[in-house]
Amino acid sequence: MLTIFIHRQGQTEPVTSIDRAWLAPGSSTLLWVDLAAPTIPELLILSDTFGFHPLSVEDARAELQYPKIEAYDGYLYVILHGIDFHAGEKGIATHDVDFFLGTNYLVTVHDGHSTSIKALADAVVRNPKLMNEGPVSLFHRLVDSMVDNYRPEVEKLEARIDELEDAIFDHPSHTLVRDILLVKREVAGLRRVVIPQRDVVSRLARRDYVDISTDMSFRFRDVYDHLVRIADDAAIFQDRVTGVLDAHLTSASNRLNEVMKVLTVMSTIFMPLTLLSGLWGMNIELPRFPGSDAAQFWWLSGIMVVVVAGMLAAFRVRRWI
Amino acid sequence: MLTIFIHRQGQTEPVTSIDRAWLAPGSSTLLWVDLAAPTIPELLILSDTFGFHPLSVEDARAELQYPKIEAYDGYLYVILHGIDFHAGEKGIATHDVDFFLGTNYLVTVHDGHSTSIKALADAVVRNPKLMNEGPVSLFHRLVDSMVDNYRPEVEKLEARIDELEDAIFDHPSHTLVRDILLVKREVAGLRRVVIPQRDVVSRLARRDYVDISTDMSFRFRDVYDHLVRIADDAAIFQDRVTGVLDAHLTSASNRLNEVMKVLTVMSTIFMPLTLLSGLWGMNIELPRFPGSDAAQFWWLSGIMVVVVAGMLAAFRVRRWI
Amino acid sequence: MLTIFIHRQGQTEPVTSIDRAWLAPGSSTLLWVDLAAPTIPELLILSDTFGFHPLSVEDARAELQYPKIEAYDGYLYVILHGIDFHAGEKGIATHDVDFFLGTNYLVTVHDGHSTSIKALADAVVRNPKLMNEGPVSLFHRLVDSMVDNYRPEVEKLEARIDELEDAIFDHPSHTLVRDILLVKREVAGLRRVVIPQRDVVSRLARRDYVDISTDMSFRFRDVYDHLVRIADDAAIFQDRVTGVLDAHLTSASNRLNEVMKVLTVMSTIFMPLTLLSGLWGMNIELPRFPGSDAAQFWWLSGIMVVVVAGMLAAFRVRRWI
Amino acid sequence: MLTIFIHRQGQTEPVTSIDRAWLAPGSSTLLWVDLAAPTIPELLILSDTFGFHPLSVEDARAELQYPKIEAYDGYLYVILHGIDFHAGEKGIATHDVDFFLGTNYLVTVHDGHSTSIKALADAVVRNPKLMNEGPVSLFHRLVDSMVDNYRPEVEKLEARIDELEDAIFDHPSHTLVRDILLVKREVAGLRRVVIPQRDVVSRLARRDYVDISTDMSFRFRDVYDHLVRIADDAAIFQDRVTGVLDAHLTSASNRLNEVMKVLTVMSTIFMPLTLLSGLWGMNIELPRFPGSDAAQFWWLSGIMVVVVAGMLAAFRVRRWI
Amino acid sequence: MLTIFIHRQGQTEPVTSIDRAWLAPGSSTLLWVDLAAPTIPELLILSDTFGFHPLSVEDARAELQYPKIEAYDGYLYVILHGIDFHAGEKGIATHDVDFFLGTNYLVTVHDGHSTSIKALADAVVRNPKLMNEGPVSLFHRLVDSMVDNYRPEVEKLEARIDELEDAIFDHPSHTLVRDILLVKREVAGLRRVVIPQRDVVSRLARRDYVDISTDMSFRFRDVYDHLVRIADDAAIFQDRVTGVLDAHLTSASNRLNEVMKVLTVMSTIFMPLTLLSGLWGMNIELPRFPGSDAAQFWWLSGIMVVVVAGMLAAFRVRRWI
Repeated sequence: MLTIFIHRQGQTEPVTSIDRAWLAPGSSTLLWVDLAAPTIPELLILSDTFGFHPLSVEDARAELQYPKIEAYDGYLYVILHGIDFHAGEKGIATHDVDFFLGTNYLVTVHDGHSTSIKALADAVVRNPKLMNEGPVSLFHRLVDSMVDNYRPEVEKLEARIDELEDAIFDHPSHTLVRDILLVKREVAGLRRVVIPQRDVVSRLARRDYVDISTDMSFRFRDVYDHLVRIADDAAIFQDRVTGVLDAHLTSASNRLNEVMKVLTVMSTIFMPLTLLSGLWGMNIELPRFPGSDAAQFWWLSGIMVVVVAGMLAAFRVRRWI
Repeated sequence: MLTIFIHRQGQTEPVTSIDRAWLAPGSSTLLWVDLAAPTIPELLILSDTFGFHPLSVEDARAELQYPKIEAYDGYLYVILHGIDFHAGEKGIATHDVDFFLGTNYLVTVHDGHSTSIKALADAVVRNPKLMNEGPVSLFHRLVDSMVDNYRPEVEKLEARIDELEDAIFDHPSHTLVRDILLVKREVAGLRRVVIPQRDVVSRLARRDYVDISTDMSFRFRDVYDHLVRIADDAAIFQDRVTGVLDAHLTSASNRLNEVMKVLTVMSTIFMPLTLLSGLWGMNIELPRFPGSDAAQFWWLSGIMVVVVAGMLAAFRVRRWI
Repeated sequence: MLTIFIHRQGQTEPVTSIDRAWLAPGSSTLLWVDLAAPTIPELLILSDTFGFHPLSVEDARAELQYPKIEAYDGYLYVILHGIDFHAGEKGIATHDVDFFLGTNYLVTVHDGHSTSIKALADAVVRNPKLMNEGPVSLFHRLVDSMVDNYRPEVEKLEARIDELEDAIFDHPSHTLVRDILLVKREVAGLRRVVIPQRDVVSRLARRDYVDISTDMSFRFRDVYDHLVRIADDAAIFQDRVTGVLDAHLTSASNRLNEVMKVLTVMSTIFMPLTLLSGLWGMNIELPRFPGSDAAQFWWLSGIMVVVVAGMLAAFRVRRWI
Repeated sequence: MLTIFIHRQGQTEPVTSIDRAWLAPGSSTLLWVDLAAPTIPELLILSDTFGFHPLSVEDARAELQYPKIEAYDGYLYVILHGIDFHAGEKGIATHDVDFFLGTNYLVTVHDGHSTSIKALADAVVRNPKLMNEGPVSLFHRLVDSMVDNYRPEVEKLEARIDELEDAIFDHPSHTLVRDILLVKREVAGLRRVVIPQRDVVSRLARRDYVDISTDMSFRFRDVYDHLVRIADDAAIFQDRVTGVLDAHLTSASNRLNEVMKVLTVMSTIFMPLTLLSGLWGMNIELPRFPGSDAAQFWWLSGIMVVVVAGMLAAFRVRRWI
Repeated sequence: MLTIFIHRQGQTEPVTSIDRAWLAPGSSTLLWVDLAAPTIPELLILSDTFGFHPLSVEDARAELQYPKIEAYDGYLYVILHGIDFHAGEKGIATHDVDFFLGTNYLVTVHDGHSTSIKALADAVVRNPKLMNEGPVSLFHRLVDSMVDNYRPEVEKLEARIDELEDAIFDHPSHTLVRDILLVKREVAGLRRVVIPQRDVVSRLARRDYVDISTDMSFRFRDVYDHLVRIADDAAIFQDRVTGVLDAHLTSASNRLNEVMKVLTVMSTIFMPLTLLSGLWGMNIELPRFPGSDAAQFWWLSGIMVVVVAGMLAAFRVRRWI
């Protein structure tokens, strides 16, 4: 879907087609063109009307592109990733948004899921003066909003790691491994999507490109700080997940030790007793303890109690029980 | 096999030998010489006709060279790796293609397996105007096509990792280790072959060499983006394979815990019972439970049931069963 | 709470409101404004009176910001972290302090927990000449004091690692894992909070900003050295905690080996004896040893002693006992 | 042993002493002095005749020096390592060769094991025109030959890793660990000796030193490529050995699982049967199954078969057998 | 203790106090002041007589400072670490030596344990011309000697690693872990103390400071080489200790496998035999084998032999015995 906002002589209005004169270098007309899930004919506007370089147009058409920033003759081409809300069980999912940023126009291309662009379009309708700030400011608003949208997802991830950390010590279970490894992969995915964006925004903040004013560079530095924080959080998360995995492995090893101790204690106590009962079950003349026939059983029981006591003492010395 | 395409006065035609005048600096003749699995005499053309530096000729002759780019006097010497299709069980296999790129010629040397070169030769025959774009453009077409050929192999690798990830949790088996380690080695091999090529193409994109026009540098930047993506995918694959190996190890440790618990539970339940039966098997006067002779068996059975119940309760408390 | 110290004509006095003339570039009046847990109206002073850039004001308002240094037009904006004493079981906790450093003023914003700022305010009251040294010197005093406050916390951490190292060999227990992983996380937290501050102070020491005199840069280099030492200590701690975890894992594996050896030795000794007693318990005609009926038992006992001795010899050879 | 080759007026001849006039800056006499396992008096030539800096002379005397390149006034001082053939079981062993490279002389100092120097001395005798190429070319020939000598050792190492990889899956044994760790150490040793040499040669190839002509720099770039390849191979070897070690550890863990399963299966089947036989061995009145006295045995046997079948079914469900 | 050597007009003599005129920029008097375990009044000489910057004086007073080099106005301030001999069981211990290096003086501050300084003081007394070389040369002599003193400690460490490597395969024991982890920590400590010193000396060798002549920079490059070698050795040691730890862990896992195999083999052989003896111990009518009453025992023994032989064959097939 093609949406065009035009701003001239202090007025913002939606239009349906573009006059090439508006794009001329000295033109005072400001333009925001949004292509949401564009059809092939709609995409023609990029090459035919704006005359963008075929490679950037091809990138804008392609599905999943990595975040990057490229200076072409007369415009900046930027790809950033917005986060998909309600991605559900698939974990963190993103969509890419393409920006063509010229001196008096901003063109955005995306798959229609960007809540940030919808919100800005609504804001422009409600407050037409927004357009007056120029395309760099519009661009900054979008980037700022897209980055802010990462925060809830980061917090969700943090909550899951908190849960895992509690679970690993309080009720460890081997089904946790799957969860741990899933979270680990998501954290890696978050880093992978945030770090290149941080670098893109860092270049905007450092004013590598002349179109960015000092004040705008301060604003991008602010967005950059947010991205740095998310990247740092992701690094912390990675450490924590690794810690959880370590804890799982050591607690598994501890449980094995526990189980084996029980087995060994039981076997070590019962094997001598069983042997003793086996000896007195032999069909040969057995040695007699002093006393009556009935006393024989109690003599043997007494010996067994002594054996058990000795074993328990030995285990106590080794701190096994 | 030696194939020569020549382009002059708007015409492209195959020829069988080279006139040295065509190679003169100001010559408007454009030339593409392809040496597929060349014989020793065919290789002489490199030193005798073109006068390439002995070291680059030696490299072109040698079998497996690492990707690199070197500026010699009057030409660029580039080695890149194409992927072998149908490599089968051996995993990812590559062949090296050598490029000598001069102002008005392109010389390619390879072992005859390059599908990209075959495709370009066909394209030049069908559409002779291709040659008109000059040797850098031909070179770019080859590089672009060679890099595109990596994609299916990368996807095959991804599919195998997907399979491993499913298998590791759903039907773990110790034969998986071999597969995991094989895939791990292939991922390492992919990184090893892609990363130096990425660096070579990055230098072409950054216009380190004056013969690359701005527009061509944009095109190489595009190829560079593809290689960056493959290298990133390989990094992701590496993380995932490591994750699969971790999962295998932890699930092996979990299975061991399970097995040991069963053994311990069984032993702990049966050892006291066996002792009890052994005691009453002794050939001495045994204590009598109240009741008839026939009731003795049931008294003992009752005691055993109590012992088993107590053990099961103890295991339940420890969450073993 | 808003506290304002003003220094003019050799006099320091607390005031309750600010005259904008004091802030003029050539003004000889020196000013320290401290906002401790400021209310919203109190924060207005930052934008209204001082005219700080909205982004830095927003950062000063926000809760937990990362350490950073940013040059704005006419002032430096610095965020550093002070350590919370008595953080108790939560481990290392910090609060951020914001500094606005102009040519003749210093503004500090914090949540009211900073003991360093309280101490400096007391010092200024007791010794009014301190203000005469200028805002950079005040700023240095605060930074120096904040960094010094890290030392006791670092030493507490070191003491805990010492304890863990002793415990792991002397009375290993699986409850240690939780402690080890907690300390590990705290060490990581310490590094995370110290390293960016080290980089901020390094930039002050390197005189990236013209307002810092050579002598002041020497002083900041000194603070930088302290931070380097803390960061190095944290790196050492990390190594040591990793070593403790390794020691725990290997000692767990050693204990498992010990337990299994006991089980195997016991089983291997008792199983043949039990079989022997079982054989002579069979209700069939048994082979007789030479001698009387009473001698049969001692023959069998003798055989058992021989079996046990043989087993023990075999274990001795394998160095199991 | 001191060997001196002198080249003047197109003639190469061995001499036994050096005329200092030959070393004068403008002299057209070319000189190669080789000191093989030199005696103390022979070493005096370095300081007395050539006037080399005491530190470089001291380095040349010392036993095992690290590869390095240092520019002194009037000459380059280079240390490289040649590989010892037939090092046998000690793994990879190297000797250092010291080069003093002046405008019209080359001095080599080594312990007499260098096959490359012997080969070049023979070549100079057979083909006196070699000397005419100048000292840089002689130096290049030696370096090239020394680096080529690494190849067979690298291939031997590769063959051993191939063997280990086959062995680890086909007939794993705990004696393999020692071999794996030995190979691992050798691979680390190879990297340690190759990487600094790669950096030394890289500086020669990059023409950091003015005495290297463009053509010579191409030749050193070629040697550099060989060293890069060896370093890359060593990196691959390291990955592979780590993979073998991982495979060993996981296969050990798998074997333990197998062993424990067998033990558990056997115990779980036999313990109930033994209890049953123990119960019917008690010396009390036993319950009777229907049928004759002789049928009792078969009733019990039947029950045992049912127990075994049930156990086996349970194991089958758990995929243990 | 304060020791002062003064050199003027070709004479070196110890004095007890300093004339400030000697320190004037153009003065030809050379001075070496050594403060060994100085008292507070002795330390006043640093600020009062020499007028060193308070921060460097404070560092010189402080106990354990990290190696560093700092240029102050008119002098270099350097901290290096000497090694303590006879540190005994505490492993590697160092003391810091502070150097103030001016154009015509050298001041050294240390805790009195430095053998290098004692040796140089003796040398100056025996050979007064040493002072004539100037303070940079004295400084170099001290640094060189301090670095040389590391060598024996490095070799002691190497010897301990050699021992561990032998022990781990020849008579592994779980008490080795403690030794391994101790050596590991010492190796880490060695790296931590050597690497910053290497960087300090590297800056002296690179002539970052104008007071170092070319010849002196050669000498510092030599010291730098020694430090590089020690750092490299430490890196090798670290690899080797890690290898020893790996070997310990794998050999522990191998021993566990061995123990479990013995247990499983024993149990698997004896459990069927015990069951068989139990069956024929039942107090019911047992099936009879053909032959006499006495033959029954041998029939059963024969069956047992067959069972054992079958089990052993099964184990042989699995390569367990």
